[in-house]
Amino acid sequence: MSDQPPITPLSDAEPGQQADCFVVLAAKDRAKTRDGKPYFRVSFRDAARKATAMIWNDTRWFADCESSWQAGGFYKIRCRYEENQYGPQIDLLQIREVTDDDADDGFDPADFFVTTRFDPQEMFTELLDIVDEHITDAPLKQLVVNLLKDNEAQIKDSAAAVRNHHAFRGGFLEHVLSVTRTCLYLADKYLAYYPETDPPLSKSLVVAGGILHDIGKLRELESQPQGFAYTAEGRLVGHILLGRDIVREYASAIDELDAETLLRLEHIIIAHQNLPEWGSPIAPHTPESLLVHYADDIDAKYHMMATALELPPEEGEEFTPRDNPLRRSIFRGLTE
Amino acid sequence: MSDQPPITPLSDAEPGQQADCFVVLAAKDRAKTRDGKPYFRVSFRDAARKATAMIWNDTRWFADCESSWQAGGFYKIRCRYEENQYGPQIDLLQIREVTDDDADDGFDPADFFVTTRFDPQEMFTELLDIVDEHITDAPLKQLVVNLLKDNEAQIKDSAAAVRNHHAFRGGFLEHVLSVTRTCLYLADKYLAYYPETDPPLSKSLVVAGGILHDIGKLRELESQPQGFAYTAEGRLVGHILLGRDIVREYASAIDELDAETLLRLEHIIIAHQNLPEWGSPIAPHTPESLLVHYADDIDAKYHMMATALELPPEEGEEFTPRDNPLRRSIFRGLTE
Amino acid sequence: MSDQPPITPLSDAEPGQQADCFVVLAAKDRAKTRDGKPYFRVSFRDAARKATAMIWNDTRWFADCESSWQAGGFYKIRCRYEENQYGPQIDLLQIREVTDDDADDGFDPADFFVTTRFDPQEMFTELLDIVDEHITDAPLKQLVVNLLKDNEAQIKDSAAAVRNHHAFRGGFLEHVLSVTRTCLYLADKYLAYYPETDPPLSKSLVVAGGILHDIGKLRELESQPQGFAYTAEGRLVGHILLGRDIVREYASAIDELDAETLLRLEHIIIAHQNLPEWGSPIAPHTPESLLVHYADDIDAKYHMMATALELPPEEGEEFTPRDNPLRRSIFRGLTE
Amino acid sequence: MSDQPPITPLSDAEPGQQADCFVVLAAKDRAKTRDGKPYFRVSFRDAARKATAMIWNDTRWFADCESSWQAGGFYKIRCRYEENQYGPQIDLLQIREVTDDDADDGFDPADFFVTTRFDPQEMFTELLDIVDEHITDAPLKQLVVNLLKDNEAQIKDSAAAVRNHHAFRGGFLEHVLSVTRTCLYLADKYLAYYPETDPPLSKSLVVAGGILHDIGKLRELESQPQGFAYTAEGRLVGHILLGRDIVREYASAIDELDAETLLRLEHIIIAHQNLPEWGSPIAPHTPESLLVHYADDIDAKYHMMATALELPPEEGEEFTPRDNPLRRSIFRGLTE
Amino acid sequence: MSDQPPITPLSDAEPGQQADCFVVLAAKDRAKTRDGKPYFRVSFRDAARKATAMIWNDTRWFADCESSWQAGGFYKIRCRYEENQYGPQIDLLQIREVTDDDADDGFDPADFFVTTRFDPQEMFTELLDIVDEHITDAPLKQLVVNLLKDNEAQIKDSAAAVRNHHAFRGGFLEHVLSVTRTCLYLADKYLAYYPETDPPLSKSLVVAGGILHDIGKLRELESQPQGFAYTAEGRLVGHILLGRDIVREYASAIDELDAETLLRLEHIIIAHQNLPEWGSPIAPHTPESLLVHYADDIDAKYHMMATALELPPEEGEEFTPRDNPLRRSIFRGLTE
Amino acid sequence: MSDQPPITPLSDAEPGQQADCFVVLAAKDRAKTRDGKPYFRVSFRDAARKATAMIWNDTRWFADCESSWQAGGFYKIRCRYEENQYGPQIDLLQIREVTDDDADDGFDPADFFVTTRFDPQEMFTELLDIVDEHITDAPLKQLVVNLLKDNEAQIKDSAAAVRNHHAFRGGFLEHVLSVTRTCLYLADKYLAYYPETDPPLSKSLVVAGGILHDIGKLRELESQPQGFAYTAEGRLVGHILLGRDIVREYASAIDELDAETLLRLEHIIIAHQNLPEWGSPIAPHTPESLLVHYADDIDAKYHMMATALELPPEEGEEFTPRDNPLRRSIFRGLTE
Repeated sequence: MSDQPPITPLSDAEPGQQADCFVVLAAKDRAKTRDGKPYFRVSFRDAARKATAMIWNDTRWFADCESSWQAGGFYKIRCRYEENQYGPQIDLLQIREVTDDDADDGFDPADFFVTTRFDPQEMFTELLDIVDEHITDAPLKQLVVNLLKDNEAQIKDSAAAVRNHHAFRGGFLEHVLSVTRTCLYLADKYLAYYPETDPPLSKSLVVAGGILHDIGKLRELESQPQGFAYTAEGRLVGHILLGRDIVREYASAIDELDAETLLRLEHIIIAHQNLPEWGSPIAPHTPESLLVHYADDIDAKYHMMATALELPPEEGEEFTPRDNPLRRSIFRGLTE
Repeated sequence: MSDQPPITPLSDAEPGQQADCFVVLAAKDRAKTRDGKPYFRVSFRDAARKATAMIWNDTRWFADCESSWQAGGFYKIRCRYEENQYGPQIDLLQIREVTDDDADDGFDPADFFVTTRFDPQEMFTELLDIVDEHITDAPLKQLVVNLLKDNEAQIKDSAAAVRNHHAFRGGFLEHVLSVTRTCLYLADKYLAYYPETDPPLSKSLVVAGGILHDIGKLRELESQPQGFAYTAEGRLVGHILLGRDIVREYASAIDELDAETLLRLEHIIIAHQNLPEWGSPIAPHTPESLLVHYADDIDAKYHMMATALELPPEEGEEFTPRDNPLRRSIFRGLTE
Repeated sequence: MSDQPPITPLSDAEPGQQADCFVVLAAKDRAKTRDGKPYFRVSFRDAARKATAMIWNDTRWFADCESSWQAGGFYKIRCRYEENQYGPQIDLLQIREVTDDDADDGFDPADFFVTTRFDPQEMFTELLDIVDEHITDAPLKQLVVNLLKDNEAQIKDSAAAVRNHHAFRGGFLEHVLSVTRTCLYLADKYLAYYPETDPPLSKSLVVAGGILHDIGKLRELESQPQGFAYTAEGRLVGHILLGRDIVREYASAIDELDAETLLRLEHIIIAHQNLPEWGSPIAPHTPESLLVHYADDIDAKYHMMATALELPPEEGEEFTPRDNPLRRSIFRGLTE
Repeated sequence: MSDQPPITPLSDAEPGQQADCFVVLAAKDRAKTRDGKPYFRVSFRDAARKATAMIWNDTRWFADCESSWQAGGFYKIRCRYEENQYGPQIDLLQIREVTDDDADDGFDPADFFVTTRFDPQEMFTELLDIVDEHITDAPLKQLVVNLLKDNEAQIKDSAAAVRNHHAFRGGFLEHVLSVTRTCLYLADKYLAYYPETDPPLSKSLVVAGGILHDIGKLRELESQPQGFAYTAEGRLVGHILLGRDIVREYASAIDELDAETLLRLEHIIIAHQNLPEWGSPIAPHTPESLLVHYADDIDAKYHMMATALELPPEEGEEFTPRDNPLRRSIFRGLTE
Repeated sequence: MSDQPPITPLSDAEPGQQADCFVVLAAKDRAKTRDGKPYFRVSFRDAARKATAMIWNDTRWFADCESSWQAGGFYKIRCRYEENQYGPQIDLLQIREVTDDDADDGFDPADFFVTTRFDPQEMFTELLDIVDEHITDAPLKQLVVNLLKDNEAQIKDSAAAVRNHHAFRGGFLEHVLSVTRTCLYLADKYLAYYPETDPPLSKSLVVAGGILHDIGKLRELESQPQGFAYTAEGRLVGHILLGRDIVREYASAIDELDAETLLRLEHIIIAHQNLPEWGSPIAPHTPESLLVHYADDIDAKYHMMATALELPPEEGEEFTPRDNPLRRSIFRGLTE
Repeated sequence: MSDQPPITPLSDAEPGQQADCFVVLAAKDRAKTRDGKPYFRVSFRDAARKATAMIWNDTRWFADCESSWQAGGFYKIRCRYEENQYGPQIDLLQIREVTDDDADDGFDPADFFVTTRFDPQEMFTELLDIVDEHITDAPLKQLVVNLLKDNEAQIKDSAAAVRNHHAFRGGFLEHVLSVTRTCLYLADKYLAYYPETDPPLSKSLVVAGGILHDIGKLRELESQPQGFAYTAEGRLVGHILLGRDIVREYASAIDELDAETLLRLEHIIIAHQNLPEWGSPIAPHTPESLLVHYADDIDAKYHMMATALELPPEEGEEFTPRDNPLRRSIFRGLTE
């Protein structure tokens, strides 16, 4: 492959343009035409665009595609980029695996994943520090610490969603830490405002609930080359029930954990989406679950709005487009 | 207490009538007037009516009420029956515990509970026979058998609901057996109709799902003297999640149980109420869960309608009243 | 037309492919361009795909198209197949009517219609047998028999819907027979369960209701070359009201038919879709109408789910796509 | 019965007051106490209040009540009036049938029914005049005239509803005439505004639709001593379907009636309540049905609002109470 | 530019056709490709179609486009017309500004705007005449007259909506006058029907409300070359609140205006869309606001239906397509 | 009036009890019986209960009631307390105005109003301090300061609602300060999280929005002796629109205020209830309005939940009753 033409990010290619790109093979699906001939539908992507290539069985790429191309592998390709009603397409002209030398041309595997802007280790450490300082119920603290430490790698890596909000590597931890911080604020605040409630608000539970409300995502989602996707149990059971399972599994190893505390913690997870039509089979029936619901909801919705406003505006644009998870145009400002 | 007056069932007393009745003490709640004096609010009932008596602390019953009356105990009372806006009330004139001799006057403890019209032992045996014959997946059969046998007593005794349908002793088993029979019919039928689905419908799962769909009721409800009531975890977690827990606990003891089979069984329980607003966080995504949902729904709704039509009609009544769980007048027939 | 190239089913053609196909002319619509020139938009189809050809007035096909092509006619065509944002398209290269000799090349008119997998005559006979055995109310039996026999041909041929479920030739009868069988099961079952309701459940009515619940489809839909379509009265009045009309017309010829029986039968038809937003102006107010509603609903929904699972899966596919009438991905099974 | 005390309208009696009243016997229901003794629940009413009397079988009125009191009969009673949680009650002290001489004390049977403020004959004549002048389609005119004349007595007498709006004798005709007048206005108006629609708006149909939109009320409701009540077919079928039946019956006698005209007229009746949840299985799909819907809706809603404002205001009341069919307080005006 | 080829309206061009057209430049948006090169997305339109042209920075039109093309300017272009999944497209072959001589070839600026079929001056005069005759409350009349006269030009020019109904130049006035006429009819009618309401219906307010109900559109919408568009305050505040502002501004200059009259007028504007989900924060609580709501709603909905029926039908079409603001196929008539 | 019996708070009286109480006269409504005799319906209350007394015109209190009793006046009464289906009732035995000497028996006017637990002056000062420190946009600060200072007395006194939450004297300020504090937290937090949004989040606007979101309550509600009640404009216009009016009035006096800043502030008020069915005609379209919505919503809902948990529990009560504004039983804790 000649290296004269400069390397173009796949996501910068214009329709009709021939380009050399570094890409990751996101998916390789074998299928058959109606007359029985096998072919592959292959997706290549970089961090910002995914394009499809059809590898028919009478083309020169078919054998290699079948035998050696791997989802998750990095490749250098030369292609013609097109867009049609099914979205971005590429005609593959050349392809080879990436080599160490490609680093000289700017290849960096980290470029191929959208990730949190924050440092996962720092976030994880802060989360542990919050647990240590603010969960004063010792068995509950033990549960949270055990759960966090056993799942540290996945917690640092996971997304918070397939789409909608924090749908990127590390997004789970970014969202969880932000929710937990708001939980801290709200717990301190309302504990002071209503000292007479019987029983008093449990700050330990609000903080533990903030940390664990979405823990079922670790089983609902799985990382795949093409991004995060739902697991079968994610679709058939859902992260709310799966998260409660995880908490109960860790709870069973801590004898001192109070039955009511566990019940309240389970309820926080069950109720954190507030309404049946939003996914919670039971609405918040405790002050702790109410606070965790709000801390979560505001962080998710604010992320959606901020993400819309981070996109560079079109000239003269007073509102963003509506194609964001809020299904709403966000106001940018007057132009006149 | 004179025994001249005949014994009147509490549920037959007319407002203003003085009556001698056998009753069970359903509830005894201690409270305080606003100026700090203690009193008890006591409920007496038979199978068809519950009435309240107020035991003020300056009355002759207060000391006995405090020290010896027991919820669940049987008493013979003389009272004046009244109805006001808070419902049935009684002024207590005399009271003593029931003695063996009261059997001569017709006292029978079994009269105080509404129960299923069917024999619990026969129903339970039939359920086991169905399991034996129709669940061909051996580990799944083991799970169902273990679960049924370990919980036999509670399964035979429990109600299916606090109100709405099958809300009586043995109602759980009556409903479960009826649902399971319909499941058998539907599984046989649709397996034959659609032999080409991939994978084929699992009759074992439909039957197991019919038997276990409401198993969480065993933890959601508890028997109390005044009838069945929600437990705290029943309110905060709900029978769908609690039922899945029970299934998973039993499954963990059966190594041979296939992971997908367990997942499908869990999904049946999760999805059996069909829609979020009816209580299911996830809708049916498998043929087995669709069939169990319908078998359950039709049995519950038919019970509501039949119960309305079993009440003796008012003269000239073409429709039943609307105060049934369907919130609808059921047609009895033309009167002209 | 040369017969060297093999015959390709239209539904197997790949975009860009030139193919010889047997097709039925589904629709021929005359229109005008904005500058007033006439043209035809013609649809050709086989059982699995419909494609559009534009016949401009300056092309060689225009005169024949105008004068002799008939909707419903069978043709052999040579074409180039394409797909664009308006769906499948064909450029017509050659066309002639099918001749008897084409049978040698595999032409069979029956291939062009999706039909029920069951034998219409056998289904119809079974339906009559059920009527004979299970409708014990003689005038009601007469009504059903008259209605079935008078409309036998259309009953055997009709679809149950334009889309959604049983939307194919014979689908009406397939659905009706299946619903009626479930009605039989449910009527026997609940008659035995609740012998005390006043009045008792009428098995005759449940069976008659199962058979006739959708009878208005005979006026709501009409068979057209391109499949089944709504009639004007189907859109403006709807099959529920049209079905009740048919029943009332037949009832008017049977003097002995009890007024209440007729009213109950009408109500079954009116209420069989259960809720206003699903099409029923009045919800089920009788046990018979409740059973027919469920027998119908489960058959329709199960058909949707089974149809999704009958499609051959993509490799590695754990769930079907969402583009089915349930708007839901159906679980196929774990792939790992 | 002494005639010293002045006659008090039942609806003016204060709780605790002993009063002599002329009343109509609205209903007499036989029932049994739980210990099997028969009694009657009897309702007496005047135009503005209905009160219940219990006639126990050991009281002096029981025999007369059983043998001779008639629903619809007029009586002079002496009673003590009370109100409890079940509404107005009376203790019956004396009772006799009204005699001719009671006219001297002010008895007038017409006082016992709320009726339209307009003259039924004049309204009926106006309706016929409108038909004659504005329905230019001759067969359609014939249909409407036949239908009106055949049902003249019931049309003049019926209410438009059991409650909600125009729920009084003659209310049907009052409402129908008002709707028809608005239909005339709207048909003239929009025919002039949009002369280009294809086909043009049919004024004949709008007028006929206005007159006949609620004609099914004649079968849905029946006059009873206690007011208008639903018939069984009213509840099980509903006035929309029953009204279409009437129209079709009359149409079958008019050979010249165009099939499309009849279809459009049926559609107006079917669609006049606009949405499924308001009772129309199909929404307006023609301009004529849209206009009739609005003419009907505004007349019903305005009647509700005007009726609320016709009640004499409480002192200082800026808004009416909310207990009207609009479930809304209507603004009377500022008081300061 | 050669003038041999005849001028084709842009909206008559067929895909693939080369055409000479008079057009207005609707929008000119500057953007950048991902590699940073500027380009313009330009929209040209006539009254019935809008098409996009891409002006890349290496093409001969770029400099002129940047420096001199003006949104709102008229141009004569030669282009190749295409349609793809993003809608109508043009390849620009030649372009120049329209000159006076183009009138000889049929150019008329008025052709480029859809406008009301009625004469704005006549409509405006009629509106003033209605005010003069029917608003008898002098300060209220003053308010309406001042407001109309100050905003005469914009009132005559504005559309009533961006889409949905009366979405064309002069549509605002056409709709307002029509609503006001219906208000007159309804006010006269119901004032006569219910003379006893307390207070009586205010015809002055109904008429003023009809005229001013949508007055906030003058601030919600603005005229742009490509049609009417929402202003930022239109999106963030909405025409209901903006209309009330205008009324209050004019009211503040009229000392004699009664506080209650102003409050009632504000309420009419606030409530005219009836339900929260239709845009009104508060439902009609006065008879005047109820009438204005209906007069408005029927005019909007009838316009939608009439507009669908004004489109020329396809051959054999019994119903219009569903792509109108009612989302419903309108019945044209039977074809057989 | 003898002073032997101890003074009982009205809210502590038991049904049937004779009691001496200090009360405030909450309302005095003149009405007429149906036979034309005047009477008064008078409400007396303390901070926790309101009871009704009927003053008939033939009783000894009628003349005094008519001529001298004043809503808002304090009285000492001797009464018999009863409860019936219309709620608490009193038979008045004696009554006189409160005198200075009654202070010796514990009379304190402040006891008759539920008020905030916080010091209004301190809260008001804190609010001004927040404005001073955190609203950095000078004209916006000026607007807020002017508005607060001009309305200081009413701001300190008003309730936040008639019922639901913070429905007591000073509740408005308590709620506003709490919301503003949360706004500060959220603004600081999300400004730091998303520094790249264009435009950046305006902390000045979030704080100003928090302070002013409910400012329309000052016109929607008015203080009356019986508590806070809706004004006519409160019902017909609503606090959202009234609040925006107040802001615009103050804005008109500050020339330097940026048009966009004002528009954003108005939008915060309009959108703060988030959804049409919750009262906001337009949903949040800016980050500032999103944050204010959540800060408000959580404070209202938490107040409801905390208030339920502040009520003293019944013995053995695991959940509070459902009769709170959340319509939900709140979990207190396990009892076993």
